[in-house]
Amino acid sequence: MSRVWNFSAGPAAMPQAVLERAQRELLDWNGSGASVMEQSHRGKRFIDMAAQAEADLRTLLAIPADYAVLFLQGGATQQFAQIPMNLAAEGDCADYIVSGHWSEKAVSEAAPYVRVNVAASGRADDYLRLPPRDGWRLDARAAYVHYTPNETIHGVEFHDIPEVGAVPLVADMSSNILSGPLDISRFGLIYAGAQKNIGPSGLVVMIVRRDLLQRAGRPMARIFRYAEQAANDSMLNTPNTWGWYLAGLTFQWLLAQGGLTAMAEHNRAKADLLYRTIDGSGGYYRNPIELSARSRMNVPFTLHDKALDVVFLEESEAAGLLALKGHKALGGMRASLYNAVPLDAVQALAAFMRDFAQRHG
Amino acid sequence: MSRVWNFSAGPAAMPQAVLERAQRELLDWNGSGASVMEQSHRGKRFIDMAAQAEADLRTLLAIPADYAVLFLQGGATQQFAQIPMNLAAEGDCADYIVSGHWSEKAVSEAAPYVRVNVAASGRADDYLRLPPRDGWRLDARAAYVHYTPNETIHGVEFHDIPEVGAVPLVADMSSNILSGPLDISRFGLIYAGAQKNIGPSGLVVMIVRRDLLQRAGRPMARIFRYAEQAANDSMLNTPNTWGWYLAGLTFQWLLAQGGLTAMAEHNRAKADLLYRTIDGSGGYYRNPIELSARSRMNVPFTLHDKALDVVFLEESEAAGLLALKGHKALGGMRASLYNAVPLDAVQALAAFMRDFAQRHG
Repeated sequence: MSRVWNFSAGPAAMPQAVLERAQRELLDWNGSGASVMEQSHRGKRFIDMAAQAEADLRTLLAIPADYAVLFLQGGATQQFAQIPMNLAAEGDCADYIVSGHWSEKAVSEAAPYVRVNVAASGRADDYLRLPPRDGWRLDARAAYVHYTPNETIHGVEFHDIPEVGAVPLVADMSSNILSGPLDISRFGLIYAGAQKNIGPSGLVVMIVRRDLLQRAGRPMARIFRYAEQAANDSMLNTPNTWGWYLAGLTFQWLLAQGGLTAMAEHNRAKADLLYRTIDGSGGYYRNPIELSARSRMNVPFTLHDKALDVVFLEESEAAGLLALKGHKALGGMRASLYNAVPLDAVQALAAFMRDFAQRHG
Repeated sequence: MSRVWNFSAGPAAMPQAVLERAQRELLDWNGSGASVMEQSHRGKRFIDMAAQAEADLRTLLAIPADYAVLFLQGGATQQFAQIPMNLAAEGDCADYIVSGHWSEKAVSEAAPYVRVNVAASGRADDYLRLPPRDGWRLDARAAYVHYTPNETIHGVEFHDIPEVGAVPLVADMSSNILSGPLDISRFGLIYAGAQKNIGPSGLVVMIVRRDLLQRAGRPMARIFRYAEQAANDSMLNTPNTWGWYLAGLTFQWLLAQGGLTAMAEHNRAKADLLYRTIDGSGGYYRNPIELSARSRMNVPFTLHDKALDVVFLEESEAAGLLALKGHKALGGMRASLYNAVPLDAVQALAAFMRDFAQRHG
């Protein structure tokens, strides 16, 4: 069949132009006569590509020189554990802001390595809004403050960077990195699983202030130490070379689109259209999130009649609208609108939703 | 340019047929209208593919039912640390057989988590032969015995599985897994980075006896626990979906080649040809490894005159013979002859080597 409109929460849609280029050069990359997957990561061709990918990411996000960029493995979930291993010494505490499923996970994976202080939680509100900043009980002695700027499952997003004083701010940006400009200097460490806004799964991109690499952390193997990865240009061992390559192509694509200011407008237009469609449906569709906390990336919504869920999913898939099923924790529907999802896709979805409501009204 | 003969030690050559199929379906996989990289790992299409890949690997290696198969991330190097984290409790010791660079690394990454007993080492012999089995000082109370059946850099290989009694035998098979049939029941745990004989980098395949999953190990995050990954079909978090897919295609390709008995003959023929070429060169080329320990997968060799190294590398690359430069630890040359390297490639290399020796004699 032809390409569909893909609303998957992740692994998610990638830019068509990136996939086409990867396809063209799959067997013969960069004039080498071999696939990029068949190249030694120690070879000049690969090292040049890897360095260019980092340089392009630095351009896109205006990353200051005192921040290192790492290309790691294991998903954001492994970083939930590695962050306290690296940033917290025995006996340290760390503040966690819990705003949904993924920040809950971050807490549970960190717990073996640091005394977790849940400084604020939206759980009592069913994560329908963000825990208000003035209620956060931060500890000035915390090793860091961790939060999740966008919650992929619950569809809540911080639209400002919280002020937390001198304690380093750590952010799991898996589902909204590169969705718009960002003031990196406000953060101690940013990390993101690649499979939403960067590339294929199996790659993690991390941006970390270099002074934090000096922290002793816990006793552990070299392979888990961010400082060792930074000192070895993320090649302490063989990296995910294919993921790194596709991330690099995606960064080039973003630059060609006009960079992150253009992406922010693009993402705002898509989200506005979908929320307008939901809110203008007279209650046929519903998104329950507080307006100021609605995510631009992940839009969960329910139908007024749950019995229609199956029909909606069948008909939407038949109409070439893929992966609209909501996460099992919430049910209903979810449309993810990452960078690579074009406005055309959201227009097709909105038209389908209006038509569906009329036919099954 | 056209495809070259690729002797890279890893990431290494992949089967041409596998690459061609991946290229064909890169934008539209399995009739989904999206790339395999754009599929949710929780979707039926991906889960079916993942299960088939495991079933094909079980067929290839005749893996008994009491062994779990895991598809992990982080490279073999991360497993150097995770193995003691999972298999050894506080205060336990583990035996390590050191036969080259990679078993040295396994020791140093394990050291934070287990009392390492180096039960035997070939270091005093410059790793030119394997430490003789009758000199191993194994500890019957060890949590496990770790060894490296094939040393990628030094080019030494165990051609039999060592007898170690009741203590579980753990093997880093990154560079020789699937090179021939294997009696899995002799092992407690086998692991392999994919980037040599399985697929692209960023994926680790593990085969582990289920009773070992019951060991408490060290306190750690769930993401590091093999038992959790086994209970979740290696999808505790998002796996490397592209790597898993290509591993599956490679397993299908191996079955189509006649399975591992056929691969063993194929690999033996390639290695024999190259060693004959070296040994028959009247000292022009030299491989210093004891005959009984020579690797079928990685053949390091030197030229009689070091000054010719640069010329050899330039001329071989111009002749379409890629990545023959030896590891920096040893210098000289190295040809890696994994499953995907065809006999034609080794014939071309042998012809080039004879011709080079004549011209620069």
